Amino acid sequence: MYALYYTPGAASLVVHWLLLELDQPHELRAVDIAAREHKDASYLALNPNGVVPTLLVDGQPRYEAAALAMLLADRHGDGAFAPAPADPQRAEYLQWMFNLTATLQAPLRLWWYPGDLQCDDEAVRRGARARFEAACERLDAHLGAHGPYLLGERLSAADFYLTMLMRWSRNLPRPAHDRPHLGALARRMKARPSFAELYRREGLEEWA
Amino acid sequence: MYALYYTPGAASLVVHWLLLELDQPHELRAVDIAAREHKDASYLALNPNGVVPTLLVDGQPRYEAAALAMLLADRHGDGAFAPAPADPQRAEYLQWMFNLTATLQAPLRLWWYPGDLQCDDEAVRRGARARFEAACERLDAHLGAHGPYLLGERLSAADFYLTMLMRWSRNLPRPAHDRPHLGALARRMKARPSFAELYRREGLEEWA
Ligand SMILES: N[C@@H](CCC(=O)N[C@@H](CS)C(=O)NCC(=O)O)C(=O)O
Ligand SMILES: N[C@@H](CCC(=O)N[C@@H](CS)C(=O)NCC(=O)O)C(=O)O
Repeated sequence: MYALYYTPGAASLVVHWLLLELDQPHELRAVDIAAREHKDASYLALNPNGVVPTLLVDGQPRYEAAALAMLLADRHGDGAFAPAPADPQRAEYLQWMFNLTATLQAPLRLWWYPGDLQCDDEAVRRGARARFEAACERLDAHLGAHGPYLLGERLSAADFYLTMLMRWSRNLPRPAHDRPHLGALARRMKARPSFAELYRREGLEEWA
Repeated sequence: MYALYYTPGAASLVVHWLLLELDQPHELRAVDIAAREHKDASYLALNPNGVVPTLLVDGQPRYEAAALAMLLADRHGDGAFAPAPADPQRAEYLQWMFNLTATLQAPLRLWWYPGDLQCDDEAVRRGARARFEAACERLDAHLGAHGPYLLGERLSAADFYLTMLMRWSRNLPRPAHDRPHLGALARRMKARPSFAELYRREGLEEWA
């Protein structure tokens, strides 16, 4: 049984979504970021980075959203969401997981938290946005040539992760989904029944 | 047979190092970053991000250093450098791979390439350095409590990756290895015969 420390709409979303898709029993534990609960000593003892999510796995606190998504997809669902290590698509799958972390999540983090750098907030946002948009263009071109999913015809945890990151960009001047192939992927992923259930459980409304 | 597009000392280093450790036949193809070869159309066709490394895997170009490290450690060496998916330490292993990407590689990238954000370079560096140092303190505390490797007594690809990132910080005002447990890990990793061989093949000298 898993327990997920989550905040609605935060990086925990992809983990929550996969727990639902993979039909894994889990308990939800809300972390109130606005009240800075993620910086409480009790939460820092679970996740010294003081960020959401943390997942209790076999009773141990584990973190990093993309790592947790990979873990769940490898463990459950009989490879439905992850090519097995011996599968020729494994290299591609790993590539996209880390590529999304490096080229989308990192600049989005700066856009949401420009104070991470002690620099002019608007300048940080401008730079982060330029990097994010360039990465979106590359992904859109990839999906156009090799989609509809990141691994072609094959859905994987990387698409759930990408959808969460697209959602985070909804208030940027140019959101990720405002491109033909990324937009089509977003619509396809949002049409999954699990997405409505996720929204219901997290109490989300925006970008439904 | 693998082919690695590399630049001495760049993010390709961890991939090269694991190819040597895992005794995998490979060809090296030098990319001259100073001459901007990584922005040539021929290289961009392999890696649209225009960064090093790229690895030809079964004839296909794949990228993201951490993903390539994971791929090699899963494929070869009989689990010597990666807990198998069903192993209880798999969750921890995945966590560290992504944690190093998010908390060390991302700020180091900004420190080396402050121009990534169109902002005052010195201010970007100051912020990146503060984030990097905070992450180093957390890692050092983890190694002190649960080391000597990231997974305790068990060496994994994450330690090779961490060593590469420590090397990148060698010219920062306070390098990563300037902490007791990170320093001990660096010394232990650098004592491996493969490290001298890697240095010889890449023609490296600094931080030997
Ligand atoms: N690398 C982490 C980053 C998680 C992250 O940035 N979480 C945000 C919410 S989306 C958070 O906890 N922010 C609160 C803070 O940093 O103060 C992961 O992917 O799990
Ligand atoms: N996320 C990529 C980043 C690689 C990266 O930043 N490579 C650097 C060398 S260490 C590079 O190619 N820099 C040249 C440039 O960005 O212009 C990875 O981990 O493979």
